[in-house]
Amino acid sequence: MVEGGLVERSLAGSSVAEGLKRRAAPLVERLAVIGPGLIGSSILRAARETGLARTLVTTDANPAVRERVRELGLADEVAPTSAEAAAGTDIVIICVPVGAIASVAGEIADRLKPGAIVSDVGSVKASVIDKAGPLLPASVHLIPAHPVAGTEYSGPDAGFATLFVNRWSIVTPPENADPSAVATVAALWEALGANVEFMTAQHHDLVLAITSHVPHLIAYNIVGTAADLEAVTQSEVIKFSAGGFRDFTRIASSDPTMWRDVFLNNKDAVLEMLGRFNEDIAALARAIRWGDGEALFDLFTRTRAIRRNIIDLGQETAEPDFGRHTRSKDQ
Amino acid sequence: MVEGGLVERSLAGSSVAEGLKRRAAPLVERLAVIGPGLIGSSILRAARETGLARTLVTTDANPAVRERVRELGLADEVAPTSAEAAAGTDIVIICVPVGAIASVAGEIADRLKPGAIVSDVGSVKASVIDKAGPLLPASVHLIPAHPVAGTEYSGPDAGFATLFVNRWSIVTPPENADPSAVATVAALWEALGANVEFMTAQHHDLVLAITSHVPHLIAYNIVGTAADLEAVTQSEVIKFSAGGFRDFTRIASSDPTMWRDVFLNNKDAVLEMLGRFNEDIAALARAIRWGDGEALFDLFTRTRAIRRNIIDLGQETAEPDFGRHTRSKDQ
Repeated sequence: MVEGGLVERSLAGSSVAEGLKRRAAPLVERLAVIGPGLIGSSILRAARETGLARTLVTTDANPAVRERVRELGLADEVAPTSAEAAAGTDIVIICVPVGAIASVAGEIADRLKPGAIVSDVGSVKASVIDKAGPLLPASVHLIPAHPVAGTEYSGPDAGFATLFVNRWSIVTPPENADPSAVATVAALWEALGANVEFMTAQHHDLVLAITSHVPHLIAYNIVGTAADLEAVTQSEVIKFSAGGFRDFTRIASSDPTMWRDVFLNNKDAVLEMLGRFNEDIAALARAIRWGDGEALFDLFTRTRAIRRNIIDLGQETAEPDFGRHTRSKDQ
Repeated sequence: MVEGGLVERSLAGSSVAEGLKRRAAPLVERLAVIGPGLIGSSILRAARETGLARTLVTTDANPAVRERVRELGLADEVAPTSAEAAAGTDIVIICVPVGAIASVAGEIADRLKPGAIVSDVGSVKASVIDKAGPLLPASVHLIPAHPVAGTEYSGPDAGFATLFVNRWSIVTPPENADPSAVATVAALWEALGANVEFMTAQHHDLVLAITSHVPHLIAYNIVGTAADLEAVTQSEVIKFSAGGFRDFTRIASSDPTMWRDVFLNNKDAVLEMLGRFNEDIAALARAIRWGDGEALFDLFTRTRAIRRNIIDLGQETAEPDFGRHTRSKDQ
């Protein structure tokens, strides 16, 4: 699938964003991104900068998004439909909400060439394999993946080329997946700057339930609880949000469709992890009620160490307040 | 309490940090900060830049902190004890964990001059008034306050002069408080760059329970839950924390002593607000279990609007991901 020879723009490409490397030769001839939102458009941007594919193709169900992508010049071809974007393509990456992945798989199934790779970027993996897998022809490789990266913004303008640099992308090959197709998907994510980890779809869904899905759920929930109080006005919640609340509003402003689909498609793992969270919060509430300061102090000390590890491993900034204050502090 | 005339350093002070203004005359002669940690040392720094007091005094129970404050040159006098710092002082601001405020009030009571103002920066207010109030002589004004500002770091090195700029400081005067003492505390916070709001201590404790205390509690809790799982390793939690979890680790790395004291001293309001949170999360869990996508979508849409308001009112950055990605995105 790899073809030799430099394409013209690789010769010109002298300023590649930090953490990305310009390739001597494209990894694939033709790469299609279906759904150029935050993640999809970031893939296109990083693919362009690195020379990952000779031809970048994209499409979106929404004509306004197709138009915007044309204006931004994010791809070589903007196809009118998913089926046309997928025709003759080496790798198709489906970058739509989890609940819509299977329907896209159904739309492109007939047009995929033998040996083509279909991947996705969904935050839930087992349901993708269960629902999309049976719709694809046997001659095609389904190799799901999930880059653990993003911001709270959506759409083609929100993406940027370095979104995946030093983030992890989890590849979840189904049983008996073709090793060379798996290697190509891994190579694609590495080219985009990510570190790659392999795991089963089931384990992925459990890990992400605690590192992403339940955190989003409780963030959405506390923001909703605060909005609904009678004793405290919304204006007070907003004014005094710097006490901690505002941190939660960031992930609670993530795309509603995407997150609805995540919860509907990872029900069991989310409810299991939420059950653990609830047990623990009940114990904390009891410690508060009975004045058990030692139990509180012990937990609050343990949790500090975890952040230190996350910072040490390059997954978080050490700047106070996420760097919100940086400019002021430099004075 | 206000004295006219420029002090020498106000003439030299040409570069005042953004959002702070150099005063023509000090607001008070002598200002003491007891406990120059993140908040206390930020008050000292901002007081120095603005010329808020003719003499800045500080002390700390920990000799190493006193030494460090001397090295940093944060005050004109570093007193050996709280009692000595308070002697002859116009305003004493107690900047220690909530559980230690009353004991400091007891230590300084005998040394306060008539008409002196005692204030604090504790995150809980009713218990401060209840416990510290009776220890102070009738000739002294207790005017508690709470600047809603901070970072996850502690200690004299963590502070900075602009910490309070455009943040809110809540002043909670007890019933029958002296209006001119209240006005002086309000003027002090305005001089430090803050907006001032007045409310009763009881209402403050309810507002902060939802905008600060419960958010901290659930952040500490989810970090603890994640650390204790058997099915997901700690290394996985750390690697994949960019999915949302890492946001919570910031406030879950705040000072353990301070936060233990907050929960022990605002028990009723915290348990009441946590009860609301729990009711709402039970409803969300039920929506997930029964596949009620509409209920999820509705909440996730409502919560977006709240963040927009917080950003519009200048209490949060609009930069994606709190600006963590800013440098990369600028490329």
